[in-house]
Amino acid sequence: MRAEIITIGTEILLGQTTDSNSAWLGQHLNASGVQVERITSISDEPEAIVRALDAVPPSIDWVILTGGLGPTKDDLTKHVLCTYFGDHLVFRSDVYAHIETLFASMGRVPNALNRPQAELPAQAEIVSNAVGTAQGMLWTRGSQRFLAMPGVPYEMKHIMETGILPRMKAERNEIMVHRYFVVQGIPESDLALRLEGWEAALRPPVSLAYLPSPGLVKLRLSILGPVAEEKTLQARIDEVAAELKGLLGEDAYAETLTPLEEVIGQQLRALGHRLGTAESCTGGAIAARITSVAGSSAYFQGSVVAYANAVKQGILGVNQADLMVHGAVSEPVVKQMAAGLRKQLKVDWAIATSGIAGPDGGSAEKPVGTVWIAVAGPSYLWAERFQMGRDRGRVVQKTVLASLNALRKGLLAAAAPK
Amino acid sequence: MRAEIITIGTEILLGQTTDSNSAWLGQHLNASGVQVERITSISDEPEAIVRALDAVPPSIDWVILTGGLGPTKDDLTKHVLCTYFGDHLVFRSDVYAHIETLFASMGRVPNALNRPQAELPAQAEIVSNAVGTAQGMLWTRGSQRFLAMPGVPYEMKHIMETGILPRMKAERNEIMVHRYFVVQGIPESDLALRLEGWEAALRPPVSLAYLPSPGLVKLRLSILGPVAEEKTLQARIDEVAAELKGLLGEDAYAETLTPLEEVIGQQLRALGHRLGTAESCTGGAIAARITSVAGSSAYFQGSVVAYANAVKQGILGVNQADLMVHGAVSEPVVKQMAAGLRKQLKVDWAIATSGIAGPDGGSAEKPVGTVWIAVAGPSYLWAERFQMGRDRGRVVQKTVLASLNALRKGLLAAAAPK
Repeated sequence: MRAEIITIGTEILLGQTTDSNSAWLGQHLNASGVQVERITSISDEPEAIVRALDAVPPSIDWVILTGGLGPTKDDLTKHVLCTYFGDHLVFRSDVYAHIETLFASMGRVPNALNRPQAELPAQAEIVSNAVGTAQGMLWTRGSQRFLAMPGVPYEMKHIMETGILPRMKAERNEIMVHRYFVVQGIPESDLALRLEGWEAALRPPVSLAYLPSPGLVKLRLSILGPVAEEKTLQARIDEVAAELKGLLGEDAYAETLTPLEEVIGQQLRALGHRLGTAESCTGGAIAARITSVAGSSAYFQGSVVAYANAVKQGILGVNQADLMVHGAVSEPVVKQMAAGLRKQLKVDWAIATSGIAGPDGGSAEKPVGTVWIAVAGPSYLWAERFQMGRDRGRVVQKTVLASLNALRKGLLAAAAPK
Repeated sequence: MRAEIITIGTEILLGQTTDSNSAWLGQHLNASGVQVERITSISDEPEAIVRALDAVPPSIDWVILTGGLGPTKDDLTKHVLCTYFGDHLVFRSDVYAHIETLFASMGRVPNALNRPQAELPAQAEIVSNAVGTAQGMLWTRGSQRFLAMPGVPYEMKHIMETGILPRMKAERNEIMVHRYFVVQGIPESDLALRLEGWEAALRPPVSLAYLPSPGLVKLRLSILGPVAEEKTLQARIDEVAAELKGLLGEDAYAETLTPLEEVIGQQLRALGHRLGTAESCTGGAIAARITSVAGSSAYFQGSVVAYANAVKQGILGVNQADLMVHGAVSEPVVKQMAAGLRKQLKVDWAIATSGIAGPDGGSAEKPVGTVWIAVAGPSYLWAERFQMGRDRGRVVQKTVLASLNALRKGLLAAAAPK
């Protein structure tokens, strides 16, 4: 099955909103046997919506529209689609009762602008949105289905997960299987050179893609084939993945798209160890990443964000003389931060960072992007200097990933049989 | 001038990469007098690229393509465009010299896969990419221009900022002026109801849009008109913005898209005050947001991420009896966290958070999403309970915004004449 995604909203064209819905839809449609052929973002003007609907090729089975179903005057999608499909709106008292219940749970009552959200197209199937006021609407025309959903990510996901993805899975005839490897800290072209000979021998339907982002390269192996042959496809991709794994060795930190923060969580749980962070240049971003994982309180105790030197000394016990002689961005300081944090928070493992995120604060000896990272654990102490580039956001992002990967290696060493 | 953005990369359709380039392009094209009519994401197969180019309507002046220019085998855009425009590749020694210099600055040398990146189309104008290996390429066909750039956000932005946006600004004939208001903590439909009468009287070319995201609603006023009439347009939108400001009062925290973390930074600088955070459920996310602002070390001292109760007691001095009687998510605890942080870090202002981010840990009395926030300052102590919904990521995101907004109000009070 083939799908096209149409996102409606002038805010996307103006760049005021990043379209994160399409990425989520792409992932979940793909996993449900539906290939996304195209994603189009258009303005919320009626002519633009009609033009996009007219441009859908007959080969598309599912047209997924998001956006423009809110309670305000600039939300026109429902009315445009009604006209397009020759449909009309009817008031649905069951839907209005749901809206009232939903508002009651937040201690509110629907206002005059929420009532029209219970007016829905007579010929469309209503796909329930239990977590919001705008319902999903599904029209069928010949072999094509047109699904309109609100653009609020949380609500869109709920409608897809409860009403649409299970149906797609039941109907699919093709399946795309993938295997992933994630590599931290090796540039894309170096990795490609290492894999060049092997990659040249790959033949369709097997394909390899490189997905670089700051500090990471994700490698994706894919095969597309009939659902009936799923077992053969899985066996074939396992073979190819085993070859690739041999070429990557320990440089690949994961064989799935599991984020590093989940990988280290699994390692810490297995060891029964606890973690804290002492952060200067990352300003709490490592802790925020670690605690984004549900259940992280089982192994994460807390952090000291020591942005000012006074905090490095006062709470983490960094030596004043070392701060003066070597500077805050130095090996002795970052090691003392890690050691001080372990003691202060009574944790087994500590990550410490100190660096110059920029744009100011660089020198010839320590230019912007210079970062020291330390990892301290039971009988374990590691520290290294990195150059993370000149862009403030990227310096932080790369330091977070390099820190988590350094911890992963320390935890691997701790788990290895002595 | 009108533009169409085409992003090339199967990883976008598979949802492995979120297309953040298009949002940046939308913002900057708009500010340079170019309206984006459509954004299309397609796979990196040659047929898909050709089909997208064929579908560009004659009304489009600029076609902006990103992606598929990297050093690896799956990067085909350059070759497909050469064929499409009847062009051919020539080796550019000046570009290769740039690639060598760039690698030298990272202590590396180009490998065999980087050399072909200096092979560039003979008929295209090369738009320099000083920060990466893949150059921008600009073809002109009749009145239409086709620009291909790498998908790496950092490199794409550099090419646009140095080589393209200044040219667009010099050529523009239409301008769209905007005014923004940002409101934290008021639901979209409540806001829309408050503005209903005023909004109904708005007449084209003035328009109002609501841009909701978790915890925030951005309001955008827009007028499009000829460049020659810019002064009139600005005066007109200022009039309308003044009316809207009157209706919003103190509920609008900014009249630009300035993020809250920058607003509070300006307030702290003006007062000469220093800040720290004591975070439980936000896990460092408030500190990470504050330190994302360049120069934040002038007012931000640091944080204690007190995920575990032992850290709340040990470092922040929270009373053990209060933790046992009232629980960690309670008014006395969050107030003590803020007070303890002020003392421990010797700062003027402290934000403290304690909540149940979920999915586990909720109870009938304190369901998932219950969050206490406190702000403490010189002669200032405020705390409030919130219900932030049931999704872990959204609970954190909304708590970060509500905390920064609460601090903003505290700082406003401190700055007000006594």
